[in-house]
Amino acid sequence: MNVNVSGHPIAVRTVTFDRGNHAVRLVEQRLLPHQFKLVETRDFRATARAIADMVVRGAGAIGATAAYGLAQGVLAFRGGDLKKFLAHTETVYRTLSAARPTAVDPVNAMNQVRAAMAQGVTVPEQQVLALAAAEEFANEDVRHCAEIGRHGARLIRNGMRILTHCNAGWLAFVDIGTATAPLYAAQSLGRKFHVFCDETRPRSQGATLTAWELAQQGVPHHILADNAAGHLMQRGEIDLVIVGSDRVLGRTGEVANKIGTYTKAVLAARHKIPFYVAIPLSTIDWHLRRGFDIPIEERQEEEVLGAWGTVAPEKLDPAARSQKPRRRVYIRVANPTSSARNPGFDVTPAELITGIITPAGIIKPKDLWQQRHRLGGP
Amino acid sequence: MNVNVSGHPIAVRTVTFDRGNHAVRLVEQRLLPHQFKLVETRDFRATARAIADMVVRGAGAIGATAAYGLAQGVLAFRGGDLKKFLAHTETVYRTLSAARPTAVDPVNAMNQVRAAMAQGVTVPEQQVLALAAAEEFANEDVRHCAEIGRHGARLIRNGMRILTHCNAGWLAFVDIGTATAPLYAAQSLGRKFHVFCDETRPRSQGATLTAWELAQQGVPHHILADNAAGHLMQRGEIDLVIVGSDRVLGRTGEVANKIGTYTKAVLAARHKIPFYVAIPLSTIDWHLRRGFDIPIEERQEEEVLGAWGTVAPEKLDPAARSQKPRRRVYIRVANPTSSARNPGFDVTPAELITGIITPAGIIKPKDLWQQRHRLGGP
Repeated sequence: MNVNVSGHPIAVRTVTFDRGNHAVRLVEQRLLPHQFKLVETRDFRATARAIADMVVRGAGAIGATAAYGLAQGVLAFRGGDLKKFLAHTETVYRTLSAARPTAVDPVNAMNQVRAAMAQGVTVPEQQVLALAAAEEFANEDVRHCAEIGRHGARLIRNGMRILTHCNAGWLAFVDIGTATAPLYAAQSLGRKFHVFCDETRPRSQGATLTAWELAQQGVPHHILADNAAGHLMQRGEIDLVIVGSDRVLGRTGEVANKIGTYTKAVLAARHKIPFYVAIPLSTIDWHLRRGFDIPIEERQEEEVLGAWGTVAPEKLDPAARSQKPRRRVYIRVANPTSSARNPGFDVTPAELITGIITPAGIIKPKDLWQQRHRLGGP
Repeated sequence: MNVNVSGHPIAVRTVTFDRGNHAVRLVEQRLLPHQFKLVETRDFRATARAIADMVVRGAGAIGATAAYGLAQGVLAFRGGDLKKFLAHTETVYRTLSAARPTAVDPVNAMNQVRAAMAQGVTVPEQQVLALAAAEEFANEDVRHCAEIGRHGARLIRNGMRILTHCNAGWLAFVDIGTATAPLYAAQSLGRKFHVFCDETRPRSQGATLTAWELAQQGVPHHILADNAAGHLMQRGEIDLVIVGSDRVLGRTGEVANKIGTYTKAVLAARHKIPFYVAIPLSTIDWHLRRGFDIPIEERQEEEVLGAWGTVAPEKLDPAARSQKPRRRVYIRVANPTSSARNPGFDVTPAELITGIITPAGIIKPKDLWQQRHRLGGP
């Protein structure tokens, strides 16, 4: 999508690969919305750290990053010893898999790359195939998001007020996004609607990333505290909910997504508001049998105990010139002698979900397994 | 309750009146948990501003502040002209009423003061009666909270994990608190339990005030993002919810409280977790017929778009000595070109509430009207 840089719109993908330097190029998402910056990781361990530290986040974006990271690691191998090459590839694969244990996309993406590599015999052949497969994964991600937009746009009518949670926008994918794809598609069809972005504590991806994206595209929106949507639903001020997902169970229709998604699904069901989950096919986990078994990351306490944002330098030092840029700081909000629990994700049961918007159409969550053959399942 | 000041526990009430200076003395709650400070308001307009600006917040505390503020305003009248005195009293009453339109406590408290004043004939008589009635309101608030603790403590068994939202602790009352009263009472009975404090965005009263209170009293607790409790309930990690309220409708059992309360009640009902609301009798509104008619403040956008907290001075200015105290700042978190909606309160229907813990015992919300005579109703 377009980003306004110094007054000029430039077309940007969230994740690309620099073939000259064998570097993965990422939008540094932790600086948004205050600063737009591209960063490069020069080896697969740095790429894994970028995933773990949330320089890059979101299902498709970390899938593409892992695919490129695997190609990057594979390309760094010197020599022709196939046994050593396979052991090296395994190390790269495991390092990237371990960066975000809740997400299935990096594993699915890397499995595609490995399957392509298996078509080659020699080390150089496999290296070439790895990069081609990673590129194909990224391009497929973009095509899938465009299809999600096409299917999802028909849910959006003029005047609707739509709630989103966290960021499943183009920053969470290679481009276009999933939960945002229907919005961008409906906008391009000329429909008028309003979006409410849950701020999505503790990392505030809704207030920072989704709001930034929508502002760049000129989509009217308001940010809400995570506490507020229940009240708006009760007053009849929300017509539709669209969220993304980190993992959808193909066998049960359960949806793992950012902490707080389950809460919004429970509220939507109570108020009979349609609740949709938009995903690429790579997000579907066809193996796991119970949502309860999805590993839920317990993230750092600091996320809950404080917040990241910017402050004007003159607020901090009266002598500072106001021309200086705002500084990015972490503040401690909570009582200094208290601790926090910080589960990063939750699981929403199928009964609360109206439909799953996929590149292959909108499907009821309980029907995923039955339709698995056309959805790329087993 | 006790506050640890420079290593010494001192007994503090949230709201007191300085008879020598005719000043209302308040705990400056916006500085907590980072700094404990008492502030004074010297006239009724300053007292109204302290209520509006949330120097003081919480049902009982703003009730007592308004009662003292009315007495303060009445005491400032010079002369003996009864007609002018009544007009002045009306101005004071309206100014203090308008400071927080959602809350019923200031109005109830001031009505008690006015009823007492009506027993006097001359201006000086009414002035003396106003202050005595304000003092009685504050003392009654403390007695009520102690009774709430006594009744509520029997809900708390060893090993329980209890969720709270916002702050209905002693800082929200003159002393002891309502939602916290059962906790403090159970603790004094030797029971062991764990508390989860919703951080309660946008003003984070749970992370700051409730967590600070519990830490001062040595009650084990964790802070949660407002998004997290649904997940913990789903995993069977919460046994009981206790919250406070700004207004309970005596006719319907509906409960107005901090934004997000309704959401937690919906989640608790889904998981069959008991959901209790602890209030003094002054919080009951016997007149209003529908929760929908409770005015819901739309508060400043800045609350949602950023956060208040502290930062170490060396983070801001590398030349600063680390011995300097942490600085309190407001940071902008959200995308700078986005706006926010910020409803301050929501309304929870009676069907979601297990019981109302009052000084007169625990009552089902639908039974409030039937029992109105012993609850001080009409």
